[in-house]
Amino acid sequence: MTNTQIVIAELPSDSLTPAHFKQTTADMPVAGDGQVLLKVILMSIDAANRSWMKGATYRAAVNAGDAMPTYAICEVVESNSDRLAVGDIAASEATWSNFVVADAHKCEKLPKVPQLSNLMSVYGIAGKTAYHGLISVGQPVAGETVLVSAAAGSVGGYVGQIAKALGCRVVGIAGGAEKCKWVTEELGFDACIDYRAPGMSKALRAACPDGVDVYFDNVGGTVLEAALFAMNEKGRIVCCGAVSQYDTETPTGPRNLPGLVVVKRLRMEGFIVMDWTQNDAKALRALQTWVDAGQIKVTEDIVDGLENAPQALIGLLAGENKGKRMVRVAADPS
Amino acid sequence: MTNTQIVIAELPSDSLTPAHFKQTTADMPVAGDGQVLLKVILMSIDAANRSWMKGATYRAAVNAGDAMPTYAICEVVESNSDRLAVGDIAASEATWSNFVVADAHKCEKLPKVPQLSNLMSVYGIAGKTAYHGLISVGQPVAGETVLVSAAAGSVGGYVGQIAKALGCRVVGIAGGAEKCKWVTEELGFDACIDYRAPGMSKALRAACPDGVDVYFDNVGGTVLEAALFAMNEKGRIVCCGAVSQYDTETPTGPRNLPGLVVVKRLRMEGFIVMDWTQNDAKALRALQTWVDAGQIKVTEDIVDGLENAPQALIGLLAGENKGKRMVRVAADPS
Repeated sequence: MTNTQIVIAELPSDSLTPAHFKQTTADMPVAGDGQVLLKVILMSIDAANRSWMKGATYRAAVNAGDAMPTYAICEVVESNSDRLAVGDIAASEATWSNFVVADAHKCEKLPKVPQLSNLMSVYGIAGKTAYHGLISVGQPVAGETVLVSAAAGSVGGYVGQIAKALGCRVVGIAGGAEKCKWVTEELGFDACIDYRAPGMSKALRAACPDGVDVYFDNVGGTVLEAALFAMNEKGRIVCCGAVSQYDTETPTGPRNLPGLVVVKRLRMEGFIVMDWTQNDAKALRALQTWVDAGQIKVTEDIVDGLENAPQALIGLLAGENKGKRMVRVAADPS
Repeated sequence: MTNTQIVIAELPSDSLTPAHFKQTTADMPVAGDGQVLLKVILMSIDAANRSWMKGATYRAAVNAGDAMPTYAICEVVESNSDRLAVGDIAASEATWSNFVVADAHKCEKLPKVPQLSNLMSVYGIAGKTAYHGLISVGQPVAGETVLVSAAAGSVGGYVGQIAKALGCRVVGIAGGAEKCKWVTEELGFDACIDYRAPGMSKALRAACPDGVDVYFDNVGGTVLEAALFAMNEKGRIVCCGAVSQYDTETPTGPRNLPGLVVVKRLRMEGFIVMDWTQNDAKALRALQTWVDAGQIKVTEDIVDGLENAPQALIGLLAGENKGKRMVRVAADPS
């Protein structure tokens, strides 16, 4: 038996293209002591994949020849550990592959739910990132204005829906009129600004007549700069990502940031979802409550087929997804 | 009787020069009901003076024709209020003038200490800014590394000395070898880096072998960018000022800021000293204790004469001061 993988053919020096990947066939990996063989079902596609190609971050750098790392939902097909049994569903670090081997103690056993994809969207990394970042870092209060970039993206859509459930005015930023319409009509944001249309700063001021109290930043760059000008005193900027900066070798910084941070006494704070696992149970209970009450719609954007993973990531970086993007490598077990 | 004032002749479009000021003679101001006539003794010279010329901040913009606003220590020479008596010493908002009128309820009555200048340096805005910013925003712990820019400046010198008293490794950044020598030998910093010398980033890494846990930023710009690369995970950046950005119309932002803030989960927070007045008594007690124990040296840089205020500010922006800069307009009352 062999194992299909997508590996990095060459590290990008600027924008990512399909030529930076190649499909290869490896031998079937073998599970050692304490390890499990996992069949990959769903892979999470994240802007962070691109940032890992730029050097070491909170994880080691990804280099040419490596299979792209990913967070995945898998089925256990062989087990050399008491922790997991064949047939169990587990979340694990994996790679863009049909099969991977993992240390059983690093896997998280998941419940068998009707749709495994929900464990990657609203009840997974997307929903938990939105919850922890907004609630614990942004600390919004009912009546405040919350601004969210990449509002049609995997995290942004949940951020805005949670903020609405908390009683905030919610304004999104997204790319293109069609996405903005989806954000307001489907997700219930109060307004959504098209950052590709001229006059973004003016539109931002009009949509936030009382200024911005919490800005949930997924993009960095010029959108962050525009948001800084709109922030109220004592405003909070939740730094969740900088997708505008990942796919380029010439990043730009918000030009008047240090001055504005002082004058407005802003707090700007980065976080990653793994920092807040101690609050996961609370997050899941809240998310479930809002989903059951119809206050949060579950948004998923599933691309079929391992071979389509490169294009799924390239498209994500270009902003084509609506909701949490993932790649389905195999069907949910029946 | 007339009153000499220094007013803005023209707002600068780039660097500040003496031509942006002119000396004028105004009528003696008259104290109304509830007001006092104040004789200005000492005026605080701050980089913030320059930022007020750029537009509205936490105070109204300063415009051509206005006398430059300042924080001042004054003697009450006429009083139409029960709150202050003739001969009292008071801190007040003032202007670059020999005499000003102020609302008595906006003045702060000061103790009569042997040297009034101490109420503007270590026991005044400089010491309190250093204390509140470092302790309440930066939250350093013994053993951590604290980096301070403008280390020879009014605030930076106290920040470093407080951090040393708390058991931190303290590294300064200052302009020129002579200032760096003063910072280490006179103020007791563990190291000081000359940002004007080549190889600042490399020198920074060498001086901070365990990385930087707290960066107290007085300057913004390229020094902030270098500091961001040196920050440890969960590091705190105290945004106290951005002096490198005030005297220019082409500010620059730290290019990879949004990405690094996320990856390292940094917290970057602006503050101004007035936000923390509720902790002033605690700050003054601690500062007094450290001064009495010889752990903090009082550093003052006093320029004599109202007419020299423009050059005192221009020189401050060029980084020529060591310690808290002020202008003496009149002698301490005997």
